[in-house]
Amino acid sequence: MTERDQQTSLPTRVVIIGGGFGGLNAAQALKSANVQVTLIDRRNFHLFQPLLYQVATGGLSPADVSSPLRAILKHQKNTAIVLAEVTGIDRARQEVHLRGGDCVPYDHLIVGTGVRHHYFGHDDWSDIAPGLKTIEDALDIRTRIFLAFETAEREPDPIKQQEWLTFVLVGGGPTGVELAGALAEIANETLRKDFRQIDPRRARIILIEGNDRVLTSYPPKLSAAARRSLHRLGVIVMTESLVTSVDDRGVEFKSKESTQRIDARTVLWAAGVRASSMGRILAEGNDKSLDRSGRVLVDPFLNLPDDQRVYVIGDLAMFTHQTGQPLAGVAAVAIQQGKYAAKTIIARLAGKAVKPFRYSFPGDMATIGRNHAVADIKGFRYSGFLAWISWVFLHLMKLVEFDNRLLVFVQWVWYYITHNRGARLITGEHRLPIRD
Amino acid sequence: MTERDQQTSLPTRVVIIGGGFGGLNAAQALKSANVQVTLIDRRNFHLFQPLLYQVATGGLSPADVSSPLRAILKHQKNTAIVLAEVTGIDRARQEVHLRGGDCVPYDHLIVGTGVRHHYFGHDDWSDIAPGLKTIEDALDIRTRIFLAFETAEREPDPIKQQEWLTFVLVGGGPTGVELAGALAEIANETLRKDFRQIDPRRARIILIEGNDRVLTSYPPKLSAAARRSLHRLGVIVMTESLVTSVDDRGVEFKSKESTQRIDARTVLWAAGVRASSMGRILAEGNDKSLDRSGRVLVDPFLNLPDDQRVYVIGDLAMFTHQTGQPLAGVAAVAIQQGKYAAKTIIARLAGKAVKPFRYSFPGDMATIGRNHAVADIKGFRYSGFLAWISWVFLHLMKLVEFDNRLLVFVQWVWYYITHNRGARLITGEHRLPIRD
Repeated sequence: MTERDQQTSLPTRVVIIGGGFGGLNAAQALKSANVQVTLIDRRNFHLFQPLLYQVATGGLSPADVSSPLRAILKHQKNTAIVLAEVTGIDRARQEVHLRGGDCVPYDHLIVGTGVRHHYFGHDDWSDIAPGLKTIEDALDIRTRIFLAFETAEREPDPIKQQEWLTFVLVGGGPTGVELAGALAEIANETLRKDFRQIDPRRARIILIEGNDRVLTSYPPKLSAAARRSLHRLGVIVMTESLVTSVDDRGVEFKSKESTQRIDARTVLWAAGVRASSMGRILAEGNDKSLDRSGRVLVDPFLNLPDDQRVYVIGDLAMFTHQTGQPLAGVAAVAIQQGKYAAKTIIARLAGKAVKPFRYSFPGDMATIGRNHAVADIKGFRYSGFLAWISWVFLHLMKLVEFDNRLLVFVQWVWYYITHNRGARLITGEHRLPIRD
Repeated sequence: MTERDQQTSLPTRVVIIGGGFGGLNAAQALKSANVQVTLIDRRNFHLFQPLLYQVATGGLSPADVSSPLRAILKHQKNTAIVLAEVTGIDRARQEVHLRGGDCVPYDHLIVGTGVRHHYFGHDDWSDIAPGLKTIEDALDIRTRIFLAFETAEREPDPIKQQEWLTFVLVGGGPTGVELAGALAEIANETLRKDFRQIDPRRARIILIEGNDRVLTSYPPKLSAAARRSLHRLGVIVMTESLVTSVDDRGVEFKSKESTQRIDARTVLWAAGVRASSMGRILAEGNDKSLDRSGRVLVDPFLNLPDDQRVYVIGDLAMFTHQTGQPLAGVAAVAIQQGKYAAKTIIARLAGKAVKPFRYSFPGDMATIGRNHAVADIKGFRYSGFLAWISWVFLHLMKLVEFDNRLLVFVQWVWYYITHNRGARLITGEHRLPIRD
């Protein structure tokens, strides 16, 4: 506690950078506290990342999985939102610097700016194999997927046609698995009767994973169930395979000593992540304070080891104090850490003792197409239809705003009945079949 | 009828360019005919243009007002869809040329490619004052509107702040009037409690119209009612005012001999249209076959005067045979003309006599914010809440696909209760407040 906290009547200033799961939950947990909250984000909305793959596959619209931050927090009088990019943090002067020159002073700072995708030193792959982190990424992927089918329809050469009908997903985590399942349903059901020259069911969907199983953070039993579900949908799963090269005609990968190539015009990246630039900014040149992925090593209270005024939460934080294992980059961790940071600030302001952060594991889930999912909830591990129904209702409930819940529910019911994906619009700059 | 029609067993080939209201209705009217239909469009979806202004103002998502053409026509076995850009039409050889080199031969051709906005020789205004014709336009306008409020929130200079809170709409037709009404509701209701530095109700919304009334194609009584509704919402309507210059800080206009200037950072264009490039292509160098806006003069059967194999429909056609007055560029005209062209082709193939096209006026409507609209239906002219309810249900019914109807209905009910516009996302390239 500083002199300012104790001796002036000015309310304590809490600045939060990032309006994702962590930052938003921190802001909401400070609602009734006698503090002045400033939430800074580069976007004017909170994104419900777990459903972003459904935007990328034309099942939902961007607005269905996004909620304007100002709408969520409009009645929270102690909170201001600033739409801006943070360019620096001066921890000595307790100031956040914004692009354009503005400064936002803080007494306590919570940083939860997440991660970006990462190509392991091959940044040139990013144009060819986009990742899925933002709404813009999702719309880019959506255009690529549906334009590939359109291009195949207009392509007279059968070899090229099959290249356009081949989709490679790099990375067998939840995003890769869920994208693969959705792609299979698009090819087998949604587009089944849409074309006259091609049969969309001829599409090949290939999931490449470096490890020996998909969903490596889940129990092996569920990985096996997920693989069976993918297989039933026609997805080819290649484990123990490392991508060594990506170009605009396909990928090369090493699998058990041999190198193979898949000719494919659509490659999607769900393999690696690296911390956002805020990690480097907080490190202030001390690389030892970051892990290999650029995540910030935090103390048991989620603080920077040398600065109790700064909390790092969510995917950006590297927290290992509970089990010795780093916590996964999932929404549940970010939500709990956001709330914890807020409560810790309140407790410390009141001069109370605080306990270290403890993660309470609520379970893991991934859905694989319609009717199938795998779930690991409080040690109860199950898969199939029951898991899928759990997945559906859990995700509906977790959507922040009621209108999102309603819209997503309507579209899921509709999709369940008809297989139609009404949001499969080809938009943006490149929207015509490619001829080469 | 040519030799091919009569003597070969090959089905007659009908090619339709444009999947708007005209082209789509033509294709659907050919469903049971013994013809082979090819529908060519640059986009993979049909756009319900009358609700596009709601996308531009964050009330609906793009997919809510769009339907994939393949989804609409998937069960129509005699119809193929080609996603391509038409670069030329060879009427002598009866071929449509596509970008990339492909040729599509036709026996009968229906062209309904609509209009683009038009700046009366000031194409440089288009970057500053975007028009509203495509999904991309709508998203661009959406970003500009909500970014303007965000920029005002961060702008310390009160004069610049007011510039960011000033919105100018050029053109008092249905699009200008509906955009103005929606903008007023955004400022007065949706964003009312969202900001901490600005009061969104301070926003000035100014509608500039060259004529002496808004909605000039409607009866004067309804124009007056629309103006009253706009006035009640706080919109400033300036009639008999001609915009003479647009720059990135505002507009200049001439009004009763004097020239005035309005400083505004957001200018939207709803004033002029010009026929799509297909008009010039059909004219084959003969400018007399086009009107001043580039629309194609058609004979009483919607054919080119010298070519009964080519039909021009919708906004692209200039049809004056019924009353001496050109028909308005509205959905109802395009729908009726599309159906007429299809039926005329079928009748002529059967060797039957055909009657000239006659437009049956179903009415005009425009909505002005929540609860107010003006309507002119079969001579019954009314305004206010009753007109608004008619507008709501008519537009819901007219949406092509059932899932669109459901989604739009849900969002309208939700908006009616809460004033929330969940789709007010700032997306695309420029999404941070502007400092200058």
